[in-house]
Amino acid sequence: MDPRVREHAEIIVDHSTAVQPDDEVVIRGHPVAEDLMVAVAELCGERGANISVRASSSRVDRAYRKAIDAEDISISEVSLAGVKEADVAIGIRADANTFETSDVDPEKNSVMAKVNKEIQDIMMDKRWLGTQYPAPANAQDAEMSTDAYENFVWDAIIKDWDAVREHQQQLVEILDPGDEVHIVSGDSTDIRMSIDGNPTQNDYAEHNLPGGEVFTAPLPDSVEGEVLFDKPLMAQGREVQDVSLRFEDGEVVEHAAAKNEEVLTAVLNTDEGAKRLGELGIGMNRDIDQFTYNMLFDEKMGDTVHMALGRAYDDTVGEDNEGNDSAMHMDMIVDMSEDSFIEVDGETVQRDGTFVFEDGFEA
Amino acid sequence: MDPRVREHAEIIVDHSTAVQPDDEVVIRGHPVAEDLMVAVAELCGERGANISVRASSSRVDRAYRKAIDAEDISISEVSLAGVKEADVAIGIRADANTFETSDVDPEKNSVMAKVNKEIQDIMMDKRWLGTQYPAPANAQDAEMSTDAYENFVWDAIIKDWDAVREHQQQLVEILDPGDEVHIVSGDSTDIRMSIDGNPTQNDYAEHNLPGGEVFTAPLPDSVEGEVLFDKPLMAQGREVQDVSLRFEDGEVVEHAAAKNEEVLTAVLNTDEGAKRLGELGIGMNRDIDQFTYNMLFDEKMGDTVHMALGRAYDDTVGEDNEGNDSAMHMDMIVDMSEDSFIEVDGETVQRDGTFVFEDGFEA
Repeated sequence: MDPRVREHAEIIVDHSTAVQPDDEVVIRGHPVAEDLMVAVAELCGERGANISVRASSSRVDRAYRKAIDAEDISISEVSLAGVKEADVAIGIRADANTFETSDVDPEKNSVMAKVNKEIQDIMMDKRWLGTQYPAPANAQDAEMSTDAYENFVWDAIIKDWDAVREHQQQLVEILDPGDEVHIVSGDSTDIRMSIDGNPTQNDYAEHNLPGGEVFTAPLPDSVEGEVLFDKPLMAQGREVQDVSLRFEDGEVVEHAAAKNEEVLTAVLNTDEGAKRLGELGIGMNRDIDQFTYNMLFDEKMGDTVHMALGRAYDDTVGEDNEGNDSAMHMDMIVDMSEDSFIEVDGETVQRDGTFVFEDGFEA
Repeated sequence: MDPRVREHAEIIVDHSTAVQPDDEVVIRGHPVAEDLMVAVAELCGERGANISVRASSSRVDRAYRKAIDAEDISISEVSLAGVKEADVAIGIRADANTFETSDVDPEKNSVMAKVNKEIQDIMMDKRWLGTQYPAPANAQDAEMSTDAYENFVWDAIIKDWDAVREHQQQLVEILDPGDEVHIVSGDSTDIRMSIDGNPTQNDYAEHNLPGGEVFTAPLPDSVEGEVLFDKPLMAQGREVQDVSLRFEDGEVVEHAAAKNEEVLTAVLNTDEGAKRLGELGIGMNRDIDQFTYNMLFDEKMGDTVHMALGRAYDDTVGEDNEGNDSAMHMDMIVDMSEDSFIEVDGETVQRDGTFVFEDGFEA
């Protein structure tokens, strides 16, 4: 086994989820990530925790989704009852073929997401973590050799997360007391939103591994303007390119995409909350130095911001504020490396990717 | 996909477990059986049932079991809560390496079996099925090519189970009202037991696929005599050969094995019930024409009987009788093809493998 697999597992079990004796730990992942599941299970055993291993198969998911009628889709009572008992949920992403569900009706996928929302909600009150194992199919998506992709993934993951936390805290302290955020990139993106009263979170790999972003939630009704997400994204097994959205009073009133626009439409039609933003995130992980068609990494890239349609994370919604609720959470990315800036309450905090607290910043 | 996979799945979903709309179906199996899991999931979707897929990994199990201290092993509350919600439990056996847990302390495996007994008990009140997928490692155990093993497995499984039921019913009608069973084979096996008041079951692939045996439970205190199980068996990842047991008042008072006797000792020490028989079975599936080191098939072979140490199945224990209770259920096989007979209440019902109701029987 690659020694980095055990280092990866140690960060998962000790840093991210802090597994304790007698914890009920659910470990989910595709069998191509078996090495990492083995290493995580071993550490859980050493800590005296209890494990339930839920290897998954996207081929099985696809066959089931194609076979069942949309109106017969309902929540799995077995999974619901199980997740209620969990203390820790570790989800390992890895694929044998990232296009496995590409021929499933997108509306059916939306229904499935909707019925599973209750499970998702319960899980997110636990100590939960999502991470990536560098499987060949994921390397293929990244247009990299498996060997090079292993280096990319583990360089982004195996690092000093305390130092990351400290660096990122400088941005948290700007955003946390802030109100209006104004984001401009080229001619295509000019958007304003209020984050007044919503806490800003420092992602140093507690829930996402790699971590490396600072994020909060816009007030659901406050978003105004236009944005072009010029980085592609994968949704429901399909690549959606050049998503452009226009917001009025927080709601998407126009939408378009250069490729697979119908997937975007299905996402927007999931429920009311899917038409509003639930997250504003600013990528700060400079070890992620290339786009790999994988949101877990892409959204953390330096010189980018991302916004998500759909649910807001509870810890980004202030006590007196209302959070956006939805079965959907779809992140989309804007490149901020050139001809771009971020202002908070009229003060420029980032220009062309460089932060106010970094060398080389030009006000 | 091999068309026999879909035929196999149809027998599982329609004959064995009779999946209905809204059923909660748990599908478990190793990823090497992915094709069969896909076909089963597809049929469940067509029937409008709900599925939970629990692919498993013996490498993960091994790592966990080696890492955890025996005294820290406890039931998984996640799995327990899940199984309570299930209507149907489908277990697909298939391995990447059948020796994967061969270096785990046998005592730890016994503890694990003990803590999982509650889950097992609940599952056995559901519609449950255990079947086999012909994976290369299982072909290897059988000392066959994968191609030949696929033929062997699917010939034994894809058949007219109603015709099987009818043929086997002739033996059920002899045993069901019977009391004393006397089994003799060569000089090494001469054993008597009472089955008085215990129902005899006809296995036509409701719980085991392939099916093909008739079985009941001895009264726990009634077993007397000696038996040599001259077919090898796999227990806890190890091959145990030539198990010989001597019973007094139903309890094992002497035991020996030619190979891996310590595994047998650990099995007997699991709990009190592990020292007594919980099953007497008579193999009747003549399509299973060779020994393959796989109890699911081996115990169904024609010309054999098998006895299990440990738990009795509830449906083989009469209302007024006590059933043997244990976390263990380990089957062991006696070859009855030569120099052997079975008597029920003094009447010979099988000689050298041929039943009283079959051509060629010599009284």
